[in-house]
Amino acid sequence: MPTALKCGWIRAMADAGVASIEVGSFVPATIVPQMADTAEVVADAVTIAGLRVVALVPNLRGAQAAHAAGAHAVTIPISASNSHSLANTRKSTADQIAEVGRISAWVGAQARPMQVEAGVSTAFGCSMEGVVPIERVVWTAAGLVAAGADTIALCDTVGYAHPALIRATIRAVREAVGGRLRTLHLHDTLGMGIANALAGLEEGIRAFDGALAGLGGCPFAPGASGNVTTEDLVFMLESMGFSTGIDLEKLLATRALLAAGLPDERLRGQLALAGIPRTFHRAA
Amino acid sequence: MPTALKCGWIRAMADAGVASIEVGSFVPATIVPQMADTAEVVADAVTIAGLRVVALVPNLRGAQAAHAAGAHAVTIPISASNSHSLANTRKSTADQIAEVGRISAWVGAQARPMQVEAGVSTAFGCSMEGVVPIERVVWTAAGLVAAGADTIALCDTVGYAHPALIRATIRAVREAVGGRLRTLHLHDTLGMGIANALAGLEEGIRAFDGALAGLGGCPFAPGASGNVTTEDLVFMLESMGFSTGIDLEKLLATRALLAAGLPDERLRGQLALAGIPRTFHRAA
Repeated sequence: MPTALKCGWIRAMADAGVASIEVGSFVPATIVPQMADTAEVVADAVTIAGLRVVALVPNLRGAQAAHAAGAHAVTIPISASNSHSLANTRKSTADQIAEVGRISAWVGAQARPMQVEAGVSTAFGCSMEGVVPIERVVWTAAGLVAAGADTIALCDTVGYAHPALIRATIRAVREAVGGRLRTLHLHDTLGMGIANALAGLEEGIRAFDGALAGLGGCPFAPGASGNVTTEDLVFMLESMGFSTGIDLEKLLATRALLAAGLPDERLRGQLALAGIPRTFHRAA
Repeated sequence: MPTALKCGWIRAMADAGVASIEVGSFVPATIVPQMADTAEVVADAVTIAGLRVVALVPNLRGAQAAHAAGAHAVTIPISASNSHSLANTRKSTADQIAEVGRISAWVGAQARPMQVEAGVSTAFGCSMEGVVPIERVVWTAAGLVAAGADTIALCDTVGYAHPALIRATIRAVREAVGGRLRTLHLHDTLGMGIANALAGLEEGIRAFDGALAGLGGCPFAPGASGNVTTEDLVFMLESMGFSTGIDLEKLLATRALLAAGLPDERLRGQLALAGIPRTFHRAA
C-alpha cells in the first residue's frame, strides 16, 4: 500500500474514533518490504491529535527507530513457545525477554517517554509445539514485567485459543502480573475470535487488537488468518452497552480506503455485509 | 438438492455423530419447492438407528404430515414480533400460539408420540419491528408452554442478538418456563453467532441449532445469513471440554456431500479452511 494511502487510512480511522493504532513495524525491509516506510508513517500519524501511535519492533534497534520517529508506544512480540521463538527470531524466549530488558532500560534513559508493551505470542497454542502450557505463558509474562515491560498483551498468534483457555490463561497471568496485563490480540483462524474476545471482556480485559476488515495473518505463523475484525468487535461491544468512542458508520466507511490501497485483499467482516441493524441504536 | 443426495448427506451426518437433525419442512411446495420431498426424506431418515428426526411445520396440517411420515419431533416457528408473524403467516402471534395448542392436542391424541418444539422467532430483534422487548418474548414462550409445547427454542431469526441480550433473555424466559427452554437457534449475520452460542452455553443451554457450512438464511427474513456453522460450533464445544458425540473429521468430510448437492452455494466455516489444529485432541 502506498505511503500516502496508509497515512490517509490511519487519519480516517482516527477520525472514526479509534484511539490507538499500530501503524507499522520496524522490521528489516528485506524481510517485510511492505513495512519499509514505517518511519514515515509514524511521523505522519503522530501529527493526528489524540491518536496513540504504536509500532511493532522486534528488538532494541527497532525500538530506537520507533522512538526517533516519534511513536508513543512500541509492542514487542515474544513467543512463549521456544520453537516458535527460535524459528522466527533465532533467539530463545529467554533471550527475547532479555532484549525487552535492554529496550526498557534504553527507553527509560530517554527524555521523551515511550510505552513498552510486550506481546506474549503463541500464548494459546503454537503451530510448531502444539499446546503451550499456561505455566509457560505465566513464566514469560512475569519475566517480561520483571524485564521492565509496561504492559502485557496475550496474543493468539495462530488462532488456536478457545473461550475456556482464554479465561484460564487470563486468570493465571493476572495472578502473576496484576494490572500489567492489558491487551488481548486475537485471530479468527478457527472462527472463535469474537467469542474469545467476549470471554476476555468478561474476565475484565478492556483493550483488544483488531484489524479493519479482518486484514492480516502472520508471515511467520502458517495457517493464521486475519486479526479479529475491528468493526464486528466494536459492534458487539457497543451492542452490549460498552462505549468504545468509535463511530461505526465512519469506521465502516474507512474500508473503502483499505480496498483502494490493497485492491487484491479479501475484506472480511459480517457487519459490512449485513449493515448496521435497526435494533442497534436503541439496544446501545 | 436431489432427494437421494439429501438422504445420503443426512446419513453421513448421523454417522459422524449428529444425534438430531432437522431434515426438512412441511411447507407448501408452491412456496418453498426445495422442500417438496420432505415426507420422503423423513421416511428415509427414520430408518437411521439412533437419529432423532425433526421436521419444521408451520401449522396442524404440516404436523399431521410430519407424524404420518414418522418424524420424531416437529418444530414450529412462532414469531414474537407480531408484524413478522403477520407478514410471514398472515396470523398474529396469539393466533399462532393457538395453532400450537391445536397441534399439541392433536399429537397428544395419537398412538405414536411426537415431540412438539416451539421456536420463538425474532426473539432477539426483528427486521420489521426492530427491538423486540424481552417481556414480549417471555409472554410468547409462556403462551406456547401453556398451549402444550414440550420444549421452547429461542431463535435469532435475523441475527441481531448479542451476548448480553442472549443472557438476559435466557434468564427471563427460564424464570417463566423453567426447563422447557431447551434450544438456541442462532444466525451469524453480524458475526456474533459463535459468541452468542458461548453466552448461551454459559447460561446452561445444551442444545444448539447449527447448519453444516453455515448454510442457509431465511426466505422470510431479508438480510439473514446462514445459521451458525455446525462444525465451528462443535469445535469450540469440544475444545472447551464438552462432549458432543461428534467426530469432527467425519463431520468435515460431509461438506463434500453438501457441495455435490448444492454446487452453487458458498460453504462457510473457519475450521474447514484452517484444518483441525495440532492442539485439538490434547486440549479436549
